[in-house]
Amino acid sequence: MTDLLARRARLLGPNLPTFYDDPVHIVRGKGVWLWDAEGRRYLDCYNNVAHVGHCHPKVVAAICRQAAVLNTHTRYLHEGILDYAERLTATFGHGLSQVIMVCTGSEANDILLRMAQAVTGKSGFIATDNTYHGNTWAVSQLSSRRPPVGGYGANIRRVPAPDALAPLGGSAAAQPAAFAAGVAAAIAELEEAGFGFAGFMFCPVFANEGLPGVSPGFLGPTAEVVRRAGGLLLADEVQPGFGRCGSHWWGHDWLGVAPDAVSLGKPMGNGHPVAAVVARPDVMAAFRQAFGYFNTFGGNPVSCAAASAVLDVIGDEGLMANAAAVGAHLVEGIGALRHPLIAGVRGVGLFVGVELARDGRPATAEAAAVVEAMRRRGVLIGRVGRAQHILKLRPPMPIRREEADIAVAALADALAGLPA
Amino acid sequence: MTDLLARRARLLGPNLPTFYDDPVHIVRGKGVWLWDAEGRRYLDCYNNVAHVGHCHPKVVAAICRQAAVLNTHTRYLHEGILDYAERLTATFGHGLSQVIMVCTGSEANDILLRMAQAVTGKSGFIATDNTYHGNTWAVSQLSSRRPPVGGYGANIRRVPAPDALAPLGGSAAAQPAAFAAGVAAAIAELEEAGFGFAGFMFCPVFANEGLPGVSPGFLGPTAEVVRRAGGLLLADEVQPGFGRCGSHWWGHDWLGVAPDAVSLGKPMGNGHPVAAVVARPDVMAAFRQAFGYFNTFGGNPVSCAAASAVLDVIGDEGLMANAAAVGAHLVEGIGALRHPLIAGVRGVGLFVGVELARDGRPATAEAAAVVEAMRRRGVLIGRVGRAQHILKLRPPMPIRREEADIAVAALADALAGLPA
Repeated sequence: MTDLLARRARLLGPNLPTFYDDPVHIVRGKGVWLWDAEGRRYLDCYNNVAHVGHCHPKVVAAICRQAAVLNTHTRYLHEGILDYAERLTATFGHGLSQVIMVCTGSEANDILLRMAQAVTGKSGFIATDNTYHGNTWAVSQLSSRRPPVGGYGANIRRVPAPDALAPLGGSAAAQPAAFAAGVAAAIAELEEAGFGFAGFMFCPVFANEGLPGVSPGFLGPTAEVVRRAGGLLLADEVQPGFGRCGSHWWGHDWLGVAPDAVSLGKPMGNGHPVAAVVARPDVMAAFRQAFGYFNTFGGNPVSCAAASAVLDVIGDEGLMANAAAVGAHLVEGIGALRHPLIAGVRGVGLFVGVELARDGRPATAEAAAVVEAMRRRGVLIGRVGRAQHILKLRPPMPIRREEADIAVAALADALAGLPA
Repeated sequence: MTDLLARRARLLGPNLPTFYDDPVHIVRGKGVWLWDAEGRRYLDCYNNVAHVGHCHPKVVAAICRQAAVLNTHTRYLHEGILDYAERLTATFGHGLSQVIMVCTGSEANDILLRMAQAVTGKSGFIATDNTYHGNTWAVSQLSSRRPPVGGYGANIRRVPAPDALAPLGGSAAAQPAAFAAGVAAAIAELEEAGFGFAGFMFCPVFANEGLPGVSPGFLGPTAEVVRRAGGLLLADEVQPGFGRCGSHWWGHDWLGVAPDAVSLGKPMGNGHPVAAVVARPDVMAAFRQAFGYFNTFGGNPVSCAAASAVLDVIGDEGLMANAAAVGAHLVEGIGALRHPLIAGVRGVGLFVGVELARDGRPATAEAAAVVEAMRRRGVLIGRVGRAQHILKLRPPMPIRREEADIAVAALADALAGLPA
């Protein structure tokens, strides 16, 4: 382990994050389980990339089959990308019927920004003040966690994020209007400063904001403000997408809002590097006319085969219904713990946030301790939220009730083991 | 075909380039050969992505083997990325010993820009006025072909590119100093404008500039100017890298220049979406400290397995020596055609440019006609250069002499068929 960390520092450089005080050395994965080099098994309650389960045999077979036949770019014609685009867009409403395939969610969000610029001719963008949308130069401007290299651009505004512990406007009921007011103020500032307003980027479940438990309809007042100002609604579906919400294919449909363009990422190829933008034809045309975008690896036949197999498995194995059922079971199980540190348990399908607080204040140290204790007990989870005090459970979609129960038991144990 | 083009326009939107007036519908690849849906075979003299040959069985096997075992991110420890980084950096000199793995060359170049910002604290960048370095918001600022959405930033300067037909300074001998003078003038402008000078990005063989036949040493005066101004030399090895030059692993070593950081892309995984930045530890540290960069798919075990297999095959099959030998053979064969339209044949290993001119002026229409005629004769090539008048031959590395001869014969035929 010490050896691996030393090699890592030597070959990859400093300040490269690992999960856990005692990082895990994973060598094998299957379904919702991961194994370390010593043969120890971990329940994966964190990774949404392995969306249909680690190393799903149907996805692996699709990759192997296509990789052996052809893997080239989209300047030649190929049916793989067209068949996939047809299946993918069939899951979308709101006229979102055209696709650009890329390799990462960051590339997809980088395109969303330029789509909004191309449509509006403006350059001002808004995101929340507690979020992360990716790691390109441009997209990192919308990430509040890590000030970008060179600092924030003057054309970026960060608005107060929804929060469960300290709701905007003072109450959950007042929060939707208060959030919209924040966006309206930011738009006014951008217009005043001469950038104008191009678009508002958001995650429909506010995943990085800590899954603050907003309800469908939350974004209604904001959408109105954005539309009135002529800006675009840019939905980052990298986390909630592909059925994780249980009730809907896409987070924006769960939320009840109609975006102008959407980015897809992590779960799309079950680990194969594939991502996409889905947009209305008018938005797509504005971007494609303004900029002859071409992505060498994007939409190659192997990526399309992997992504297509993921759609197959979601359907064949009823994973959306499973996300709804097991997600609810998980929320119920955690809620039943009635531990005094648990200030709230919030779920949207198989995305569950557990807010830890003491006297109404974020319990950051306790959350850190719980994550480490669960790792020692063989259950992998993460943390999120402004104070990193919200436990994040986001397991692969095929997790079963019995496996969710293992996570709940480990959480109970971890909480019980905290110093009083 | 009409059907495929219609579906493409409907699902992917407008202004999406295809190669050839009569686009090819490729369904299968093996080595240097591609097959279309009607079973017709094409010699691939264009694709450097399929670096060790289309669907190389060792790369396919490596992908299948690893995809079935584990595919997850680098916040857990894994030996795959470390073993690969060790092998990769062993091919570099100049203290370039640390790696960031990403998914596309564009992501890699996007990082290079921020490395230069992190090291220098400045924000001015220079590239040539006839190039393309990628498609992210930031990197597209350095691409002269396609004005970026929203227009060029004021912190970008494009300097006159080297040119074979119209050399800077009036002669090939004067060109290195004239190019350096262009860079010096741009640096002065950036400093005057208050941006300061962060870095100069270049392709060591000036591939997109049309492979203008610069000699090793060409960049010496420029490197001196850049160093004196405190900026970074950012080498884009997406095209010349991984032994394509024949004599060296990397274009910058062929050119005889020591960059501060390097980007790798297309050929790295033989089509699997993997790319990287290799940098000196001081440059890497400046970036990693300034910005906690993490790439979800970057450096995953499957990407590393694919990339590692590519290194194996380059070594096992002696592909660098093959690139040198067959590249020279190709240049000789084309040179021997002594066709009046051929103003120059230039090769760096398996990267060959054939400049077509009439009365000393770019023969754009003729180049277009030759590319189409060769496609009809079953040989796939492309065009490059300011006037798109330079034929670009950049075949997979295992191409044999007999196959190169097929390309030369097709070119002779295509030239003979041109209207006089």
